Amino acid sequence: MPVTVQKFGGTSVADAYRIHLAARRAIRAKLAGKQVVLVVSAMGDTTDRLLDLAGRVTRHPSKREMDMLLSTGEQVSIALMAMAIHEAGHEAVSMTGAQVGLLTDSRHSEARIRSINAGRIRELLDQGRVVIVAGFQGVDENFNITTLGRGGSDTTAVALAAALGAAECELYTDVDGVYTADPRLVPAARKIDAISYDEMLELASLGAAVCHARSIEFGKKYGIPIHVRSSLTDNPGTMIMDNPPGMEDVVVRGATLKRDMGRITFVGLPNQPGVAAAIFDEIASREIVVDDIVQTVSEQGRSVNIACSIESRDLNEARAVGELIAQRFDSRAFEVQDDLARLSVVGIGMRSHSGVAAKMFRVLAAEKINIENISTSEIVISALVRQTDAERALQALHKAFELEREA
Amino acid sequence: MPVTVQKFGGTSVADAYRIHLAARRAIRAKLAGKQVVLVVSAMGDTTDRLLDLAGRVTRHPSKREMDMLLSTGEQVSIALMAMAIHEAGHEAVSMTGAQVGLLTDSRHSEARIRSINAGRIRELLDQGRVVIVAGFQGVDENFNITTLGRGGSDTTAVALAAALGAAECELYTDVDGVYTADPRLVPAARKIDAISYDEMLELASLGAAVCHARSIEFGKKYGIPIHVRSSLTDNPGTMIMDNPPGMEDVVVRGATLKRDMGRITFVGLPNQPGVAAAIFDEIASREIVVDDIVQTVSEQGRSVNIACSIESRDLNEARAVGELIAQRFDSRAFEVQDDLARLSVVGIGMRSHSGVAAKMFRVLAAEKINIENISTSEIVISALVRQTDAERALQALHKAFELEREA
Repeated sequence: MPVTVQKFGGTSVADAYRIHLAARRAIRAKLAGKQVVLVVSAMGDTTDRLLDLAGRVTRHPSKREMDMLLSTGEQVSIALMAMAIHEAGHEAVSMTGAQVGLLTDSRHSEARIRSINAGRIRELLDQGRVVIVAGFQGVDENFNITTLGRGGSDTTAVALAAALGAAECELYTDVDGVYTADPRLVPAARKIDAISYDEMLELASLGAAVCHARSIEFGKKYGIPIHVRSSLTDNPGTMIMDNPPGMEDVVVRGATLKRDMGRITFVGLPNQPGVAAAIFDEIASREIVVDDIVQTVSEQGRSVNIACSIESRDLNEARAVGELIAQRFDSRAFEVQDDLARLSVVGIGMRSHSGVAAKMFRVLAAEKINIENISTSEIVISALVRQTDAERALQALHKAFELEREA
Repeated sequence: MPVTVQKFGGTSVADAYRIHLAARRAIRAKLAGKQVVLVVSAMGDTTDRLLDLAGRVTRHPSKREMDMLLSTGEQVSIALMAMAIHEAGHEAVSMTGAQVGLLTDSRHSEARIRSINAGRIRELLDQGRVVIVAGFQGVDENFNITTLGRGGSDTTAVALAAALGAAECELYTDVDGVYTADPRLVPAARKIDAISYDEMLELASLGAAVCHARSIEFGKKYGIPIHVRSSLTDNPGTMIMDNPPGMEDVVVRGATLKRDMGRITFVGLPNQPGVAAAIFDEIASREIVVDDIVQTVSEQGRSVNIACSIESRDLNEARAVGELIAQRFDSRAFEVQDDLARLSVVGIGMRSHSGVAAKMFRVLAAEKINIENISTSEIVISALVRQTDAERALQALHKAFELEREA
């Protein structure tokens, strides 16, 4: 019998009514002849409530104990989901991460999956039961409870689908799929029917919060199609897959906007080996995440300018580090800019179509929007623009690349 | 190093402040040179909240899933307790029932402990850590999470003390010990310094809610002294032990009152083998708990009267069953009484002192209190009286047996 994995996020199990809806969906799949594995997250605001409890006890909780604490959220959900399926007259059994043998490394709060004991789940499925697995959690080799970090339940679901050789993994969420752009910013945005793993990975890392990059990487690695869809309707959502139909024809699949970006720039650093390494070692040691780095050479190769974009919340710390570095290397100037936004277009079709960057710059120029910074990769072109221009720029790009048209 | 086990009940970990108080107590024991194991219950009203959640999903939750659900309560407590001990600068590690290898049978919601993997705990203690174990929970041989039922955390604590060869087990609670009678009913009631396991077992089964019979049985079986004491003061509480000082001299150790009792009576049943068995099989099959049974023979041995006392809440169902039975066996009459209370005096000294029952009846007669029913065991004498007389009767007995005097 084919196995299907369905994952329900926190809002999709937020109360008894939602839990019953999710249970009904699982039962329908079972009645359609599938073996069903459900993966569930903690209910609605449970995680916040647990964080608040911990915050009352200590300001510096140990990561191991946070994992012990937070993993109870999913355990509550799986028990209630099993009860809901029983209530509808079907067989179901809940399983914690430990019980399905979801073995991880020991990096508490951001553990990586090492293996899953698929045999135990298969046995329960073969008994005709719906198996309900706690998302987000596992155990390390010493049976310490670990959690997988952000997007952990998505990762659990896709990893289970891979371990069980499932035909697909459905991620039920409170949006109905992946859009060509954020519909709150671009009214003409359109739901994408199918998208490649690589495109989705870029969209996710550029701020499309629909599902998390790690789960997509798992899907890509094991060839599991991921269906992102709404838990409130029966409409198909977005299929994340290997070769979406007409993949090469679609030059740009989507456009994103990431706000609250800043930038630091070192002007006139000595052009000698090791300077860039020293700078970014120092920045990384403060756990500041650098978004992208641009280096240009000036003064006939005697000096270089290095700019990097950083999220606004890290900008104060980056300024402090940057000033130290600028002194140490005798930089001619050190500049800090805030209130920027990163605008990106993503599409695998770019690989075989030229002129996408040029078109993007033309569109922005026509809108009299200044580009502060440019970076490109194989399937992404990004530009830093002023935050005040960002929304208008996104709309112009969406229109110019005809993203509102059906692929 | 000596091992001590401290158990904190739900009210003793009800909020961050209480958790810090409990943590401080554990740390003090550690600084006094002991290896400390903490056992904690779910915080305050957590269990009620979880039961409410389940109640919204189904009216008939499976026991396995209820165990999955309820066991999260203690898991939250152990994580927070570990954080509190860390916050005070000491090493601690939380462990679920599964993680300490607390193996039980598979009777969900009322599982029995089979074994505990003391080696794992000892290892952690030898590393200088306070080990915090989730009370009330274990796993069966298939790694299903089980719970131990009422008083489960007490049982966990005493069983751990036994497995670790601890010198004693401290049960911290919101009362400061075991009293000669309920102080709300008998103002002259006095805290008992030391009491034998057998006496405490009787008091617990007769309604003294301080600690649960199963934990006392464990303590008795493995010779673990149990110290019941308040989590809010440093005063010594009540020591439950093998041979309390002056054990034989104290004729009556305490008196109890159990309200809301009823009684059903079959009058004139045929005096033939199998009648009683048939009656109580039938009653047990409805899961009605029978408190005690009295049988008398009349009509020169031709017929018997059988009476049994039952909690009032089960009385309606008992009436229905009883009427069927009375018809089937052609009983001359079937009577149901409500609004009774069981009055008991308990003391190991009774074994070597005669006349306790006679004195009890004399005291009640002097108060003009009618006795509906009498039952005795080696160290208990009980009488059913009318509920309206019960409190006055208890006070009279407490006085007559001089329970307010220091032992």
